[in-house]
Amino acid sequence: MIQKTSVGTVAKSLTEYWSQRVVAEANGNLFKVAKGLGATSWHAHHDQEETFLVLDGALTVQLRDGDVHLEAGDLLVIPRGVEHCPLASEDVFLLLIGPDVTSTAAGGKPAWSVEGGRPTPG
Amino acid sequence: MIQKTSVGTVAKSLTEYWSQRVVAEANGNLFKVAKGLGATSWHAHHDQEETFLVLDGALTVQLRDGDVHLEAGDLLVIPRGVEHCPLASEDVFLLLIGPDVTSTAAGGKPAWSVEGGRPTPG
Repeated sequence: MIQKTSVGTVAKSLTEYWSQRVVAEANGNLFKVAKGLGATSWHAHHDQEETFLVLDGALTVQLRDGDVHLEAGDLLVIPRGVEHCPLASEDVFLLLIGPDVTSTAAGGKPAWSVEGGRPTPG
Repeated sequence: MIQKTSVGTVAKSLTEYWSQRVVAEANGNLFKVAKGLGATSWHAHHDQEETFLVLDGALTVQLRDGDVHLEAGDLLVIPRGVEHCPLASEDVFLLLIGPDVTSTAAGGKPAWSVEGGRPTPG
C-alpha cells in the first residue's frame, strides 16, 4: 500500500533549524520538510530551481532586488543562480521541492545550525 | 522581482472541478492547483508520478488494494502505472505536482466536469 505523509507532523518533529527531511520523491524531485529561524547565508543554486511552500508561520525571502514576504500557503520558485537569503523572525515550517537536498553550507545552511543551535540575537 | 503565489487564493478562485491551474514550474515539474468533488474516473499515469498535497478539505484516494484517506497537509505520491480514483464527499482543494497537466479524459477527468458541472448524487 502506498503511504501518505503528514508534512505538518514531520515539520513539528524536526529538532534542527535549516535541515531538510526528505519525505517523498517523484519525477526527479525531492519533497523536503524543514523549519527555519533567523537567516541562512546568502547563496544561490546554479543547477536547479528551488521551490518554497510555507506550511506554517512566515518567511521573508531576501533577494538582491527586494524582499518577498511569504505566509502559510504561499509558494515561491527561486530561479537558478538567483541569490537569496531566507529570514524568519519566529519558527517557520516549510516544504521545499527540488532535485537535491540543499541544506548544506553551500546551500546557505548557517554554521550555528546544528542540533540544538539557535541564531544569535541581533 | 520574483512573484509568489498564494495557492489557497488560487484554489478558492477555481470554478470547475477536476481542472488544474498551473501556478509555477520548476525542474521539469508543474505546480497545479485544483478543486475536487465526487470522483474522477479510474486511471493511471504510465509516464510520471503524480503527487497530491491536500490544501484544504479531505480526499480519499481509492487504490486497487485499498483506500488512502488524506486531510490537509497530507502528501501522497502515486507511482507510475498505479490505478487510482480520487473521491471527495465535499469540496477539496489540492496542489498537484508533476511534469504535465493531467486533468484530461485520459487523466481521469470525469465527463460531467465542465464549467458549472457537478457530480450526479449517488
